[in-house]
Amino acid sequence: MTICGVGLIGGSLAMAARREGLVERIVGFGRGEANLKVAIDRKIIDVATRDPAIAAHGADLVVLATPIRSLAPTLKALVPNLPANAVITDVGSVKQSVIEALEPLLGPAMALVAAHPIAGRETTGAGAADADLFVGARVIITPSRRSTHLAIDAIERMWRATGARVEQLPADVHDALLARASHLPQLCATALAAALEDATVDDRWVGDYGAGGLRDTTRLAASSADMWVDICLTNRAAILDALSSMNSSLGELTRMIERGDEAGLRKIFERGARMRRRLSGESA
Amino acid sequence: MTICGVGLIGGSLAMAARREGLVERIVGFGRGEANLKVAIDRKIIDVATRDPAIAAHGADLVVLATPIRSLAPTLKALVPNLPANAVITDVGSVKQSVIEALEPLLGPAMALVAAHPIAGRETTGAGAADADLFVGARVIITPSRRSTHLAIDAIERMWRATGARVEQLPADVHDALLARASHLPQLCATALAAALEDATVDDRWVGDYGAGGLRDTTRLAASSADMWVDICLTNRAAILDALSSMNSSLGELTRMIERGDEAGLRKIFERGARMRRRLSGESA
Repeated sequence: MTICGVGLIGGSLAMAARREGLVERIVGFGRGEANLKVAIDRKIIDVATRDPAIAAHGADLVVLATPIRSLAPTLKALVPNLPANAVITDVGSVKQSVIEALEPLLGPAMALVAAHPIAGRETTGAGAADADLFVGARVIITPSRRSTHLAIDAIERMWRATGARVEQLPADVHDALLARASHLPQLCATALAAALEDATVDDRWVGDYGAGGLRDTTRLAASSADMWVDICLTNRAAILDALSSMNSSLGELTRMIERGDEAGLRKIFERGARMRRRLSGESA
Repeated sequence: MTICGVGLIGGSLAMAARREGLVERIVGFGRGEANLKVAIDRKIIDVATRDPAIAAHGADLVVLATPIRSLAPTLKALVPNLPANAVITDVGSVKQSVIEALEPLLGPAMALVAAHPIAGRETTGAGAADADLFVGARVIITPSRRSTHLAIDAIERMWRATGARVEQLPADVHDALLARASHLPQLCATALAAALEDATVDDRWVGDYGAGGLRDTTRLAASSADMWVDICLTNRAAILDALSSMNSSLGELTRMIERGDEAGLRKIFERGARMRRRLSGESA
């Protein structure tokens, strides 16, 4: 197995795969020398390389765990030296555009099984990797034209072994669901944090007057800009749809406050509270 | 001391005041019999009453801790039986409209010192009250025309004794700061939760595909609708201002995604991350 991008996700998968005895030898391929050294020191990988030919050699299974827009260039560099029947998978947060970018690069006997483990932390890099990261997490597999049944089985087994719950979805369904469940909350947190970055009243920074609620609501804004620029640019249509539902909802609230519409306000606050109860698994 | 509304805030203040030896006898005034019983059982108050004449009798200090729009009716019911020189304070999240509503009700020798402890939890009621709730919290006192120096000193001393950091601000500055630091995050969380309440893709509820980020960003949506309808209706101008800055920020993000403006997106994600670092007290 070769892991391309030994970060939080790639590194955690390597650790879980080793613990479960799924692989004999793990090769870590990456650009950052310091991060690869951490991965070697922590015994996450057996071999570290920055050379795509070495990374590709003998790799029956390739896990692409780089930022989304580096997935295709990475695979392109590996393909000439991969075994003819290599299985390729990825861990990107967007699936349709990833599949479109990767499929044309595959050799004729290779298979692609695109996947998305819905797991993450604020921390990044091999230093943050954790064999238990995926326990109880949801992993979505989005089979495509170039997914063989054999390859799908192998990738499903791998993810199940990490403790994750595996589910198959069409790529476009995945992208529309995640645009709302993940990309939209991120954009709300970023928009709120950006709006407040320089906001002062009478020379006092508003952030100094917030409590736990402000911290919760902006927590995601600390996420990696690189990762999120990639997601925004590769899931545009679904994200714009999701943003328009948020805009409607915020516009509705605004008009109710302008009008002093007490009954309308009560209704929208109750809708929000109902969603939260459903999210917490309480009866709605 | 009489506490009107022995909920999370009123009850916690009563507990801290008793522990610090600030008061001899605490009367709890409220509408809900069950909640008053909890307050008696937990020894938060010495006397429980639903009769405003009993609540007012001999009350040198009255703490109004009811929902915002009940503050004025509550004070009005007490005034005829209050000592001539009673000091009135409140704990409302909005200050200008509260001061405007309460001042005209005061007897000629009474004083009002409006205040806002920035503290809260998802839990409510006397059962959730905690003598340590205000330790390290910020309490803002907004002196007005009817605040005497003596009364301001008394209220400041009371809040300092609870462990809070006390600060004086003009009421309009308070309202503009809190509209951004507290009311805006609440409205974002509610708008997002309401937008996702019924959102499905291919019969799957999007909430089932969210992770910790969705939970953090919508956590505030669980707050009390009653409390927030009151805040929206009593701090309208400042909240509408705050909403318009959020709308600009979200609109900016939307246009950048439409245009595929990579540099612009990177900049706004970095602004958001900078705000978060500043909020966490890391160097910006």
